[in-house]
Amino acid sequence: MTFNDFLLRTASLLIIAKGLGEIANRLRMPAVVGELFAGILLGYSFLNWIDPSNETFYILSEMGAILLLFEIGLEMDIDELKKAGLASVWVGTAGVVIPFFLAWLISLVFGYHSLQALFIGGVLTATSVGVTARVLQERGWLRSREANIILGAAVLDDVLALIVLSILTSIELGNISIYPIIRSFFMAILFLGLAIGVGLKVAPALIKLLMTLRTRGALYAGVLAFLLLFSLLSQVVGLAPIVGAFACGLLLSRTEHRLNIEKGFTPLADFLTPFFFVIMGAQVKVGNIELSSLPYALLILLVAFIGKMLPGFFVPGRKINRWIVTVGMVPRGEVGLILASYSLSHKILAEADYSLLVLIIMITTFLAPLILHILLKEKSLQ
Amino acid sequence: MTFNDFLLRTASLLIIAKGLGEIANRLRMPAVVGELFAGILLGYSFLNWIDPSNETFYILSEMGAILLLFEIGLEMDIDELKKAGLASVWVGTAGVVIPFFLAWLISLVFGYHSLQALFIGGVLTATSVGVTARVLQERGWLRSREANIILGAAVLDDVLALIVLSILTSIELGNISIYPIIRSFFMAILFLGLAIGVGLKVAPALIKLLMTLRTRGALYAGVLAFLLLFSLLSQVVGLAPIVGAFACGLLLSRTEHRLNIEKGFTPLADFLTPFFFVIMGAQVKVGNIELSSLPYALLILLVAFIGKMLPGFFVPGRKINRWIVTVGMVPRGEVGLILASYSLSHKILAEADYSLLVLIIMITTFLAPLILHILLKEKSLQ
Repeated sequence: MTFNDFLLRTASLLIIAKGLGEIANRLRMPAVVGELFAGILLGYSFLNWIDPSNETFYILSEMGAILLLFEIGLEMDIDELKKAGLASVWVGTAGVVIPFFLAWLISLVFGYHSLQALFIGGVLTATSVGVTARVLQERGWLRSREANIILGAAVLDDVLALIVLSILTSIELGNISIYPIIRSFFMAILFLGLAIGVGLKVAPALIKLLMTLRTRGALYAGVLAFLLLFSLLSQVVGLAPIVGAFACGLLLSRTEHRLNIEKGFTPLADFLTPFFFVIMGAQVKVGNIELSSLPYALLILLVAFIGKMLPGFFVPGRKINRWIVTVGMVPRGEVGLILASYSLSHKILAEADYSLLVLIIMITTFLAPLILHILLKEKSLQ
Repeated sequence: MTFNDFLLRTASLLIIAKGLGEIANRLRMPAVVGELFAGILLGYSFLNWIDPSNETFYILSEMGAILLLFEIGLEMDIDELKKAGLASVWVGTAGVVIPFFLAWLISLVFGYHSLQALFIGGVLTATSVGVTARVLQERGWLRSREANIILGAAVLDDVLALIVLSILTSIELGNISIYPIIRSFFMAILFLGLAIGVGLKVAPALIKLLMTLRTRGALYAGVLAFLLLFSLLSQVVGLAPIVGAFACGLLLSRTEHRLNIEKGFTPLADFLTPFFFVIMGAQVKVGNIELSSLPYALLILLVAFIGKMLPGFFVPGRKINRWIVTVGMVPRGEVGLILASYSLSHKILAEADYSLLVLIIMITTFLAPLILHILLKEKSLQ
């Protein structure tokens, strides 16, 4: 790819991604849906204008995923998570276990081999904190009881999904036994625990050191280098790089310069994350999806909704609008997409299955906010 | 290059570039010198750890150059330039013409062909606004008469150097006649004039439109797309992409959201510009410089100093410390490096000559601030 080519393709990628993102936004859907659509439009399915297999685009999209998970980690608050309490723990944990188990079971029944079934289950586990939080925020519901439960659960289920992700990505293809799963589980816990434990001590000292530097941009460049090394480290111990990125964000969220770091990284993330979503959409081959897979697809879609909604109905506590909690948990997003793209690039899932899963994620992501909007409007009128 | 490779190499690039930049800073040299050193260390000359011919690194370094010139344009103030007055116009113009002419002449005498001689002259034309401004600022001299003259002249000579650059980059190899030079000159003036003229009308409307968008990051992504398209446009009309980037910055500097844009782009530039300077240094092959070229190198170095200093001695006006003006104009930087790297990638200059020029730029950039520091200290004591 020449530099001119890069300029032209990147400019159109940004314009179309943000343009469709804006349209999605106006239609009360999350911008992510628009960016994925942009990818489907620009990629293999239709225009063939953005080649997701190009090295530079691939690296930029992976950097986008890393910055996204870093931001999610940075925005999380370990204390807030504790406050969310029992209701969140129930909704979050059951909301991971039920869809995972159901999707795994259905996939096995439909003839997928066990590693594939595990990955398909994994893709459905994580609620998108970003999507749900944005809808609640738009409607001025962020401080409600329901919102607390949803956000606490979504945060918890992101962590659980990342653990699922770490475990799944460390299982070697065609080699599933109970030992490596247990090993991975403890490795993930150990890595996250150690990284955050040691990191919480090291990070403030690092930031302090960086703040003494006089060179322009030393803080951002230093934090970025730290983030890249952390991502690499998590890869080295056998986990996905984004797990390291998430841990890195989490531990920097406790330093006093958190807001400063967040502000500095926002524009970088704004530049890089569209690459992630567009490349994700660009890999979809709509033409590869066969009509014969429709019954399976509909079942998985149903599981994606029902599996996440079920726990919400049994939430403990009074005066809670359980419908809001249930629907609020449905949208999937970044973490599921990351798992799906991992399974594609590691040849665990075929292109057709990958395309199907991305479409299912997109459907949850644009239906749920619509329903939630209506529910919140009704409730507001009471 | 695998993603792991990218993570490791980029993390070390950032750490070493910023580390050496910091050391340079403490030794009262500009950070750029440290970043170039980092490149020489990491590249062809020594460690072979960063491969400047890799597509992704190349694209990121070009993006770094674009963001750098965009920032320079954004920070400039057309009105301030006007105020700087006659003294600046004299120092700026003569400071471009004299070193250009002398270096061209010497190179011809030493057997370089005419296009090479023109490029070598071009590399020496532009004073680094950034380096000089930073030294003046550190010493609290930014609002002095001398500082006004220097900065006005440096701004003007950046514009002149960009016109020289536009002209030189549009001359085809081995085909120098007066016609294309005149054509390019008017093309450059026309492009800059039209771009800025039309742009000044269009830019506020564009920013206004972007501000109405609700999607996160729409302003930055939109401005970035605009910047990339502008860079591409300038390439299409036969100028270097950075000329377009500079024009784009210049015309956005007049919008009310300038500070907002500047703040947003700073971290992105902090991430990308180290790639530019490091890749620039990485292309240097120290081993290729022959001892026999020493007399030529010393002469060019002399011209680089004397040619820029001469006009300062004849600055009109009273009560001006002319030594400060003369030395303040010496440091070269970004624009010269860009021209040097263009001549290398377009095979106009050999690797040995390129390496020589980069080293000469580095010498001006670290000697001049040292002398300036001493001069300013002496003057402060009076």
